[in-house]
Amino acid sequence: MVKNGALIYVAHPEKNIDPAVHTRYVEGEIDLDKIPLNGGVLLKTLYLSSDPYIRYRMREPHLSSFVPPIQLGDPVDNLGVGRILRSEDSKFKPGDYVIGYLEFSEYSVYPGRINHSYKNSLTKIEKLPNIPLSVYVGTLGMPGTTAYQAFKYFATEKLKTAKVMFISGGAGPVGTFVTEYSKVVAPHLKIVASAGSAEKVKIMRAAGADVSFNYKEQDTTEVLQEHGPIDIYWDNVAGPTLDAALGNFNNNGLIIACGAISQASHDNKSVVHHFDEIFKRSLTVHGFIVNKGESAVAASKFREEVVPLVLQGKITSREHRYHGLPEAGKALADVHTGANSGKAVVVVADE
Amino acid sequence: MVKNGALIYVAHPEKNIDPAVHTRYVEGEIDLDKIPLNGGVLLKTLYLSSDPYIRYRMREPHLSSFVPPIQLGDPVDNLGVGRILRSEDSKFKPGDYVIGYLEFSEYSVYPGRINHSYKNSLTKIEKLPNIPLSVYVGTLGMPGTTAYQAFKYFATEKLKTAKVMFISGGAGPVGTFVTEYSKVVAPHLKIVASAGSAEKVKIMRAAGADVSFNYKEQDTTEVLQEHGPIDIYWDNVAGPTLDAALGNFNNNGLIIACGAISQASHDNKSVVHHFDEIFKRSLTVHGFIVNKGESAVAASKFREEVVPLVLQGKITSREHRYHGLPEAGKALADVHTGANSGKAVVVVADE
Repeated sequence: MVKNGALIYVAHPEKNIDPAVHTRYVEGEIDLDKIPLNGGVLLKTLYLSSDPYIRYRMREPHLSSFVPPIQLGDPVDNLGVGRILRSEDSKFKPGDYVIGYLEFSEYSVYPGRINHSYKNSLTKIEKLPNIPLSVYVGTLGMPGTTAYQAFKYFATEKLKTAKVMFISGGAGPVGTFVTEYSKVVAPHLKIVASAGSAEKVKIMRAAGADVSFNYKEQDTTEVLQEHGPIDIYWDNVAGPTLDAALGNFNNNGLIIACGAISQASHDNKSVVHHFDEIFKRSLTVHGFIVNKGESAVAASKFREEVVPLVLQGKITSREHRYHGLPEAGKALADVHTGANSGKAVVVVADE
Repeated sequence: MVKNGALIYVAHPEKNIDPAVHTRYVEGEIDLDKIPLNGGVLLKTLYLSSDPYIRYRMREPHLSSFVPPIQLGDPVDNLGVGRILRSEDSKFKPGDYVIGYLEFSEYSVYPGRINHSYKNSLTKIEKLPNIPLSVYVGTLGMPGTTAYQAFKYFATEKLKTAKVMFISGGAGPVGTFVTEYSKVVAPHLKIVASAGSAEKVKIMRAAGADVSFNYKEQDTTEVLQEHGPIDIYWDNVAGPTLDAALGNFNNNGLIIACGAISQASHDNKSVVHHFDEIFKRSLTVHGFIVNKGESAVAASKFREEVVPLVLQGKITSREHRYHGLPEAGKALADVHTGANSGKAVVVVADE
């Protein structure tokens, strides 16, 4: 028997996530040799991802949303990387690395106690030279895929004429991906990027943004008046930043509404004052959630195109690492307050 | 010399238009035989259109907007129908009917004292049997063209799978056009339409809406919960109705943002609380102003396709007529308070 720590969801947040109130770290035990697999696998968790959308899952189950709720008393679960310890499934053998929706626990069996329909698949992954496996929850995971798919579906045509793109949440894993990928496929594009700390401004500069600013210190409208008007706004935050963007658009502009991190903790309300700019300036807005709606064409080309760019160092990763499951609640909270710089990753065990 | 009445713009409104405060009817004189034409034409005004967008023109000239301001002391001007009395322009002869941006006066010379760049053309029109020439400022004019172009550009693809369309401002000239045209090209589509009076509910029913309601008496969210979720929202009003629509969408839905009549009088502010539904439900929003952005293909086919539908009675017109220029200020105000039922038309003289 060995210790098996887990992060349990214990109370619904009203606004921001408080790790001490809404989650609890508990330690159980597991018999790694004897626990029944029922045709599945036993895995050791290596990395777990903290993503803003999880806040939408931390709610009263009767409230509807675009993602299923986490049940009180269950471990939190999200995308993560693990190593197979035992397997009764012919697709996997001990030592294989996999990505999938994992429980926030040190060891777990799949299929297991939490088994939402959308998380029934583990996928084998290959280790890339000199790149930690956590890249599969960041640049080569959901944030990278989100950025890539939205880029392919919605921005490709507009890039032919666009001169200025504004990216909010520019230091996050979607923001830096969009910046770096733009520099590869549309180097003529001027990129203006915003985030909420000096450290994040450095990250955006390193990613190649032409103009990087801290929206807490510089007025977004003033920056956009100086460096705009904008042709594309890549929105990761909604709220006042979206309003500032709406007021500084060229006609026929494009908004990719890829997230609303400023809103997830606020009763899901995003107050926008300048919606009528959308009709006055003939803007197009595309809301986007990864893997939704469009064909899977871009998805299938993602690794084929992006893995080489990662290996060449043209698309990079920045991680904010939290060590051990007792820190995982803080990882969930920080992505809403902006306390992390870079992709929030919980390191549960060494590779 | 004959009397030449005109409606002059005399003060900038802060919120709603007050005809007695912001406009003044004045009577001048004109010598119809001798007034110099300078290579242009003299025309007699028959019909003038009142459209919500004019509120955006009634502003301090230093404020920017998507349409040029009207200068204090100038007559109001907008699309209208006139008859040529004299011509020094080989394109027109006396007796011709024309449509163009006309001064709000009984007689006027073009090119004349107000000569914004976007209104430099008069176009000859033909009288259709049994249909008043005012159809050219409504169903066959800007509202009809707006509805047709936005429909062609943005709705065609979505109509293949959409089941429910919600139209706000459903009794206005855009709303009834969209309803009637949908019944021609997409008869499977269930149409839910809202407006603000019992008389307008009758208009929407007559146009063929499957569900018509008065948003002042029935809660929009409740109606959409019963008859939705919606696949397409045709937005003519923005504001709280847009919010209700955002909360009752199917995934991958479409919003055609065609107007914001609820907002034009309110410091151009449209407060939207549920913008994040756009990303959560992967919605697409297309802002649209007629003749902007897209190719002119649909525009060129408009009369070819729509005139026969009008002659067959499949696309109809409803007018709220104001008689004489002294009533024109009220026509400008009413389209913002909803006091008119049907396309607001000022009848300046008989055909």
